[in-house]
Amino acid sequence: MVTTEQPAVNLNRSQLREMWSELSTEEQVNSFKKLSALDAAMFFADLETHDQARIILALPIHERRLWLRSLDPDDAADVIQKTKEEERQALLDMLDPSTRTEVFALLAYAEDEAGGVMNSRYVQVRPDMSVGEAIIYFRKQARTQEETIYYIYVLDNEQRLVGTISMRELLLAAPEQQVHDVMRTQLITISENLDQEEIGNLLSGNSLLALPVVDKDGHMKGVVTVHDVVDVVQEEATEDIQKMGGSESLDAPYLQITVPQMVKKRVGWLTVLFIGEMLTANTMQFYESEIAKAVVLALFLPLIISSGGNAGSQASTLVIRAMALGEVRVRDCLRVIKREFIIGIALGSILAVIALVRVILWPFASAVYGKYFITIGIAVAVSVAGVVLWGALIGSFLPFVLKKVGWDPASASAPFVATIVDVTGLIIYFTVASFLLRGALL
Amino acid sequence: MVTTEQPAVNLNRSQLREMWSELSTEEQVNSFKKLSALDAAMFFADLETHDQARIILALPIHERRLWLRSLDPDDAADVIQKTKEEERQALLDMLDPSTRTEVFALLAYAEDEAGGVMNSRYVQVRPDMSVGEAIIYFRKQARTQEETIYYIYVLDNEQRLVGTISMRELLLAAPEQQVHDVMRTQLITISENLDQEEIGNLLSGNSLLALPVVDKDGHMKGVVTVHDVVDVVQEEATEDIQKMGGSESLDAPYLQITVPQMVKKRVGWLTVLFIGEMLTANTMQFYESEIAKAVVLALFLPLIISSGGNAGSQASTLVIRAMALGEVRVRDCLRVIKREFIIGIALGSILAVIALVRVILWPFASAVYGKYFITIGIAVAVSVAGVVLWGALIGSFLPFVLKKVGWDPASASAPFVATIVDVTGLIIYFTVASFLLRGALL
Repeated sequence: MVTTEQPAVNLNRSQLREMWSELSTEEQVNSFKKLSALDAAMFFADLETHDQARIILALPIHERRLWLRSLDPDDAADVIQKTKEEERQALLDMLDPSTRTEVFALLAYAEDEAGGVMNSRYVQVRPDMSVGEAIIYFRKQARTQEETIYYIYVLDNEQRLVGTISMRELLLAAPEQQVHDVMRTQLITISENLDQEEIGNLLSGNSLLALPVVDKDGHMKGVVTVHDVVDVVQEEATEDIQKMGGSESLDAPYLQITVPQMVKKRVGWLTVLFIGEMLTANTMQFYESEIAKAVVLALFLPLIISSGGNAGSQASTLVIRAMALGEVRVRDCLRVIKREFIIGIALGSILAVIALVRVILWPFASAVYGKYFITIGIAVAVSVAGVVLWGALIGSFLPFVLKKVGWDPASASAPFVATIVDVTGLIIYFTVASFLLRGALL
Repeated sequence: MVTTEQPAVNLNRSQLREMWSELSTEEQVNSFKKLSALDAAMFFADLETHDQARIILALPIHERRLWLRSLDPDDAADVIQKTKEEERQALLDMLDPSTRTEVFALLAYAEDEAGGVMNSRYVQVRPDMSVGEAIIYFRKQARTQEETIYYIYVLDNEQRLVGTISMRELLLAAPEQQVHDVMRTQLITISENLDQEEIGNLLSGNSLLALPVVDKDGHMKGVVTVHDVVDVVQEEATEDIQKMGGSESLDAPYLQITVPQMVKKRVGWLTVLFIGEMLTANTMQFYESEIAKAVVLALFLPLIISSGGNAGSQASTLVIRAMALGEVRVRDCLRVIKREFIIGIALGSILAVIALVRVILWPFASAVYGKYFITIGIAVAVSVAGVVLWGALIGSFLPFVLKKVGWDPASASAPFVATIVDVTGLIIYFTVASFLLRGALL
């Protein structure tokens, strides 16, 4: 029997690791299933969460249990969140009862808030234990809890968080001391609904390894570790970058997205921008007679509108990133606009001088651009200055507007800003040119 | 005595924390110096490294010692790296001798490679110790080492790394066991010169808290913790985003950069792009007689070239990010281009249909665009399809080219790609139009 259609799936673990990103999901699953049980387990444990999810979801229902059970509750919740509503109960039923309860609780949170990222397993002790008892207790709990063992959480009888001790502090304390004498009580906690982007900024700004998540009455709900946050920070940046480039966020590695999916993710914004950009044709039509009289004006059109787009792209990118990092808040809007006003004037003036020099000092300028070449040069220079300033203002203002109306500021992508600036750039250019060239060319 | 010029600097610690990002460096330092000694110490410890560096550098030389000494060696090295060459020795002299040696060693590495990020303090034990001895030894060493105590590193007599034990494993082992019986020997290590971007991808892809840095002979040099990596990942993404928006990376929070500095960071690329975009004026000149004969052609110019820019911006952004995350490598180039070819054709065809409908079905199209409006519609549609395909190809290819010649692929910014595509977009448009309209309008 000859199997021609079958791709090369008989890879060992390290070959598979190496080739992983180049295989289709189907090839990945086939290759994965051919690994020995031990290799498969080790390979699976090393995969990133979204790969684990894809593999589990690609397996037939009856083969999923083993792999789903090998996940921590927060990761299992992530996987289940990615499945269709009607499949979820079957997957939940595969879990052991205590994990199932935890996963069920986690599913109530959005994927991108603290409650959705947190791990609901952590080591807890009571404040009236001795340090010696706490260590014994800790050793018992730590056996089943891989992820979140950097701190021990001290809870009162009503499960309210009253203090924390790091493993290091526990080891350095005398065994006969009481937990409440060595615990820290000045706590940084986060609420269940805190956005993951802010968690990232919080954890990157201090030296903590994990933050406890508490509800509004101070009850301990779980722990977000710095390790969850590396992924979160990476993911948030990726989403922002992809949106800022003018497409939807991909939510999976570039090469793992099929071509039709990719077209779907990109065509939406491209169409919106295209339809928006059609306004340039309408605007131009308005100036058709000017162009007919002075074709030379058309020559500088792409130059002028693109400078506005570039200046706007710079401004929006810098402001969007500063917002994501928490460096700039909505209340800083006026301050940012004022800054960009001055910056826009400076940048616009520099480019205007270059434009003027380019047009006026061009070899045989009067032969190329006609006898009004100096006026044309001035019109181009003034328009460049105006369009660059306008680009910087729109680019910096738009992210604030989007944030204010509840959209992601990252949607103020370079192409989006450029599209807005293009239309207004045309108007600026033709207004300036009409004014300066009236009685001459026009 | 009335002090009018002095800004509000008498802030308490939490007020200062709140207002920090809105103050100039001078105001920050003045306010900081007015804090009580205890408050200042707590405030300083909470600051991010680059803020610590700015404060230290803004203080008079004789006030720097205390604060410099409060930093971990890796952070102290970062600060010293930011000073002028001739100041460095004075700052080094302020450190205690053992820290000075470490900092000196760290200064030899680039700031963005493993050696520059790593902490040179870690807890080390010998393989022939018992677990009980190791715990005692660990407690002794851990007192002075805050940052890097998640793992204990087992070194042989020549300081070569032979194994690791996590704190958790140490606590779970029986005290009489030998270290070499409980240690892990399948180690993931990183070399001193590994780029920090790759460290980020490595640590985010597995569940380790820290990675040991070893030289080529396996000697232990230091430890990079997941905590360093959160900052690294955040920083790398910020740099990439800023470059992708078409400016230099800012290296400091948006509001803390003065307006002249900001102009300086942005004017370079803006000028390069502007000069590049001037080619559009030269290209247009070549088609001046066509425009004069058929002004209607000019109307669709901005629409057509911007679609190419948008498609290119999407493609370059997605490819750059995939490269940064290690999802796409240089050897995947051909595969990516092939994908983008198909994607570009799909996206181009969709926009072409929209363009055709827009021109042909526009109310009174023949009055607005003349009797050849159908041919013009076809010319616009074909050009849009061609330009979008071209944009997707250039946008995805350019990051590979930059990477290959050793530049940062993130420099293939949306504006850069748009500039390249604009010039070629014009050529595509006028070639198509000349061909289709020859004998009619032209």
